[in-house]
Amino acid sequence: MADQDNPSETTAGAKGTAAIIDAIVFNDDGLVPAIAQQADSGEVLMLAWMDRAAVEETLKTGFAHYYSRSRGALWKKGESSGQVQALRDFRLDCDGDTVLLLVDQKGVACHTGRHNCFFRAPRDNGLGDIHPVITSPDQLYGKKDEDKGG
Amino acid sequence: MADQDNPSETTAGAKGTAAIIDAIVFNDDGLVPAIAQQADSGEVLMLAWMDRAAVEETLKTGFAHYYSRSRGALWKKGESSGQVQALRDFRLDCDGDTVLLLVDQKGVACHTGRHNCFFRAPRDNGLGDIHPVITSPDQLYGKKDEDKGG
Repeated sequence: MADQDNPSETTAGAKGTAAIIDAIVFNDDGLVPAIAQQADSGEVLMLAWMDRAAVEETLKTGFAHYYSRSRGALWKKGESSGQVQALRDFRLDCDGDTVLLLVDQKGVACHTGRHNCFFRAPRDNGLGDIHPVITSPDQLYGKKDEDKGG
Repeated sequence: MADQDNPSETTAGAKGTAAIIDAIVFNDDGLVPAIAQQADSGEVLMLAWMDRAAVEETLKTGFAHYYSRSRGALWKKGESSGQVQALRDFRLDCDGDTVLLLVDQKGVACHTGRHNCFFRAPRDNGLGDIHPVITSPDQLYGKKDEDKGG
């Protein structure tokens, strides 16, 4: 059983990080989409975006960092809510334009308080809500709403 | 055990499709990223992009369709290789800007012949190749290389 509070055993060294950065095809905005997947269960938690600094911080610290497009800033997942993602492995796809992070999610991944962000699905001729809220956003953020996943 | 050749039991009706289309936040190019995940095992297979027509075709036919950014055209996954993805469920995330397709992948998802596209990972101070080639690209495409996943 992996310890959710401890960072990855698979963080890359300086050469590994350089090799990864070289292989990533960032888009015109300097970003790459990153899928976060719970390492043991395989649950897809969320998708966010990484810039070069987010990749470097993730590999250096062993905790998932992203680039917030709305705030225009580097963002450590869980910084305000405590719902951090400890990195278990870092994967890059065939053409280098998508990252897959295997993580141990502490608490819930979604800013709505659900365990993952993918809770809307076609049901009964409409859009259903198929996952329960586990932790209320107020509990996660107080009156702030800064640390959004998804 | 789901039949890989049969489409989804959860394809949306006309109202469901309209509700989904309304809820999706397409980017400035009219696209949304779509993660394909093997429904039973949870394996993340690939990420591709969908436009409105790809969403409609996927929900109508029960087989994953994407928008090829390189070819600028609607693309049925597996059209030339036979490696189709039968839809099992369609999920939309909290803010509507990412799709998660639960599918039954026939054969391999990656155009390199690997079961999924995420086969590169930091290993030994470099970038390692952690998944084997199961079916050679020549076998999948002959001399063509048109139906790429990832």
